[in-house]
Amino acid sequence: MKKYNFNAGPAILPQIAIDNTLEAIKDFKGTGLSILEVSHRSKEFDAVMVDAIALFKELLSVPEGYQVLFVGGGASTQFFHVPYNLLNKKAAYLVTGSWASKAKKEAELFGEVVVVASSKDKNYSYIPKGYTIPTDADYFHITTNNTIFGTEILTDLDSPVPLVADMSSDILSRPVDVSKYGLIYGGAQKNMGPAGVTFVIVREDILGKVDRKLPAMVDYRTHIESGSMYNTPPVVCVFTMLETLKWVKAQGGVKEMEKRDTEKANLLYAELERNKLINPVAETDSRSRMNVTFVLKPEYAELEKDLLDFAKARGMEGIKGHRSVGGFRASLYNALPLDSVQALVDCLKDFEKSH
Amino acid sequence: MKKYNFNAGPAILPQIAIDNTLEAIKDFKGTGLSILEVSHRSKEFDAVMVDAIALFKELLSVPEGYQVLFVGGGASTQFFHVPYNLLNKKAAYLVTGSWASKAKKEAELFGEVVVVASSKDKNYSYIPKGYTIPTDADYFHITTNNTIFGTEILTDLDSPVPLVADMSSDILSRPVDVSKYGLIYGGAQKNMGPAGVTFVIVREDILGKVDRKLPAMVDYRTHIESGSMYNTPPVVCVFTMLETLKWVKAQGGVKEMEKRDTEKANLLYAELERNKLINPVAETDSRSRMNVTFVLKPEYAELEKDLLDFAKARGMEGIKGHRSVGGFRASLYNALPLDSVQALVDCLKDFEKSH
Repeated sequence: MKKYNFNAGPAILPQIAIDNTLEAIKDFKGTGLSILEVSHRSKEFDAVMVDAIALFKELLSVPEGYQVLFVGGGASTQFFHVPYNLLNKKAAYLVTGSWASKAKKEAELFGEVVVVASSKDKNYSYIPKGYTIPTDADYFHITTNNTIFGTEILTDLDSPVPLVADMSSDILSRPVDVSKYGLIYGGAQKNMGPAGVTFVIVREDILGKVDRKLPAMVDYRTHIESGSMYNTPPVVCVFTMLETLKWVKAQGGVKEMEKRDTEKANLLYAELERNKLINPVAETDSRSRMNVTFVLKPEYAELEKDLLDFAKARGMEGIKGHRSVGGFRASLYNALPLDSVQALVDCLKDFEKSH
Repeated sequence: MKKYNFNAGPAILPQIAIDNTLEAIKDFKGTGLSILEVSHRSKEFDAVMVDAIALFKELLSVPEGYQVLFVGGGASTQFFHVPYNLLNKKAAYLVTGSWASKAKKEAELFGEVVVVASSKDKNYSYIPKGYTIPTDADYFHITTNNTIFGTEILTDLDSPVPLVADMSSDILSRPVDVSKYGLIYGGAQKNMGPAGVTFVIVREDILGKVDRKLPAMVDYRTHIESGSMYNTPPVVCVFTMLETLKWVKAQGGVKEMEKRDTEKANLLYAELERNKLINPVAETDSRSRMNVTFVLKPEYAELEKDLLDFAKARGMEGIKGHRSVGGFRASLYNALPLDSVQALVDCLKDFEKSH
């Protein structure tokens, strides 16, 4: 049975990235060795890292003065690396979900934290507006896409202080004006590659301004100076990530991703609006194109397990909602084809008919 | 041409671990999805993590009261996680090479550090003896195998304070009396798996004793409580690591690894002693079984490039020495077959004959 991969992350990858990883595991670039056992100091792997950094910069039109890093540890590690590197006195956070809340909590270990706004009052179903960013903050932190709750910030905000964004789950889904950010970070395991590698884009002039001393692995400058090779990187993860970046470019880059992702999301949201059994969760103007959350209407709530089973029997993978929202979540990352979304829409229609 | 993989790490892995990774990338446990795009919260991957923890405990006979963690970031990250978690006032370090030195440097950010002994005076070619460990230290840190310099601590030391060991490059190469250690850590990319995953074995009762507050990702208790699934782990790396652990068990466990590794090292050191052109680097009683360092005798020093080319033409990979030692280094990790060492010995003999 064909599987439709709606996993929230780790998530669906382009087939060509998977196929090329298979080849590299058999024989990496004709070295006679597997990518799993090749030295990260070999010229062949060094080229992978250099190419990955260059291509990521190209895809996002990263301006002069910014550096790209690939490290291990996941976005959760960045939650404390960001304040460790940047927070001298005060930081401002926009709390739009669980990840934003965790990021804020880590910052509190390093200085004063101001929450400019939170959408916790409505279980994070919307993106707050009309807040004020303190001009004396060292930075302002946002989470652009809230994987669990299905909301997304779709514009590049104006901030009087360096803007720091966790873009784990919507990086490469639209052109981003990087010049409006001080730092962008995220785990690769949604739109960029497999789990195990984390990206950081940082404007160099915001670094080196805190009073505390930094451990080498925490200090972004360590990784800048070494071209992300200060210590052994997650070699095979970086390889698959580069293959994923190449696929994005071959498809037409982030503009094409935005077009496709918008079309996929519109298709699914239209069905959720139409379907008599279902309610979308996120408020209309805050909807994520990456993670679409929905629930059965209260009068049909008892059908939840039936719908899960119905969808599973048709090959729908990963559509159970996170426990903090309940219901359903379909993740529509870059590599998910439109026909997978159509299959889910058909599934929801057929379920409606049978009830 | 057959390649002999003497890389210092990432390093040679068992072929079956590579083959089973290939299968999992095509279809992970019959899920219809690749291990590169499967959810880490799926029951199939959860079993991988649970099995890896259990098997690692079994292979090393980890006693009650200890926990095993698998995290990202590499041993370099542990250099600061160890003092962050354990150093209240004072720590003691044995400095036997570059990695030990880097570990010590990170500890200095968190408290007083006493160097009990160092072998820097002879470019780390020996393991110091006869030092005193301060009984008021919070822990005593050692690096059991010095990948760059080719020295190794082959016994489980007695320490009056919790013994912390970086075993990145000799874990699983002999039975270890874990009960003599407070904490053991290392990158997986030598004897345990591919680059991208890091192991920690920790005695629980040494945790929670520092005054400072810890970031969630730094605090070992976070990963203990979540079974190493607090955040998204490096999924494919953990999979290949489990397959490598299974291979170790199938071969007869760490006792068998010790037998083979000793035999391989003896074979190569015997040739280095015999060969008229060559000197081994490490002092006799400090020699590593994992990384064998050697140089041409001073009178033949100009032949270095010739020997490298000669060996390369016979498929010897990764035998160039680290720049801080020069000469040559052959890494003889668990998965390297005896016949690879024999091939290197034959190569050195033939080179001698031709000069």
